[in-house]
Amino acid sequence: MLTMPHDAIALESYILAHIPLARAMQLRVAGWDGHCLQLAAPLAPNINDKDCAFGGSLSGLMTLAGWGATVLTLAAHGVEADVFVARSEIRYLSPLFGELRARAQASPGTRIDTLLTTLRSRGKARLRIEAAVIGASGDACVQNADFAARLRAS
Amino acid sequence: MLTMPHDAIALESYILAHIPLARAMQLRVAGWDGHCLQLAAPLAPNINDKDCAFGGSLSGLMTLAGWGATVLTLAAHGVEADVFVARSEIRYLSPLFGELRARAQASPGTRIDTLLTTLRSRGKARLRIEAAVIGASGDACVQNADFAARLRAS
Repeated sequence: MLTMPHDAIALESYILAHIPLARAMQLRVAGWDGHCLQLAAPLAPNINDKDCAFGGSLSGLMTLAGWGATVLTLAAHGVEADVFVARSEIRYLSPLFGELRARAQASPGTRIDTLLTTLRSRGKARLRIEAAVIGASGDACVQNADFAARLRAS
Repeated sequence: MLTMPHDAIALESYILAHIPLARAMQLRVAGWDGHCLQLAAPLAPNINDKDCAFGGSLSGLMTLAGWGATVLTLAAHGVEADVFVARSEIRYLSPLFGELRARAQASPGTRIDTLLTTLRSRGKARLRIEAAVIGASGDACVQNADFAARLRAS
């Protein structure tokens, strides 16, 4: 079983080592402030037939950002868990003709302490994450998604 | 402006020529019966850290299947339109440890004649597409998505 990453540098290495499509996207971690994770990828490998960002790249980047934000949030509280995306909803708002930059963080009002209590008592819990890809004039697309965490036996 | 594909063979060539991430996924068109489009991709380039299909590959494949089903449905009625994904909702039901096979078709109850009338009178219309990736024991994930079509000047 792979050891889950505990910080932003390890997260980038982990994603690039184990997810070939993230390598194809040329994904990199652009920032993590303890709450919000930022991922970035250049346009060229993520372009579509209209010379803007491919929807599959946008959804993949936001999903990885949400997954990474969940993993790093849990790690910050000393929790080692397997994390899976369970549901997502995306609205594509405007085409993006430049670098893809996604940010993701827990939904406003999320009680991390309640999540941790549930995870420790039941062995599993769900976390809602809001993500967006930022365009030149506002969000290019937005996602809300639920991630399921399953506690690893320590 | 690129000419839109009018059949399944041209669709595969078009996607692979213009979307680098689809090449990285090793996507191919597996079938088109005039209503339902099937796309496939091997697991290896689409794997994740848990040795099953990466969520970004699943969503990308279903989104391309929905986009392709929309383009081919319109082409079958002699309509050349630009098609964009506008919204999608995905539920991930079970991990997939084999080849990715997606199918997509218009939602039950869709009136193609009404869609075509709207498209011809207003120059744009939306089509709801249901998609799924089929696993060994039922659907691995399901998506419903809205695609916006914009008529090209003839």
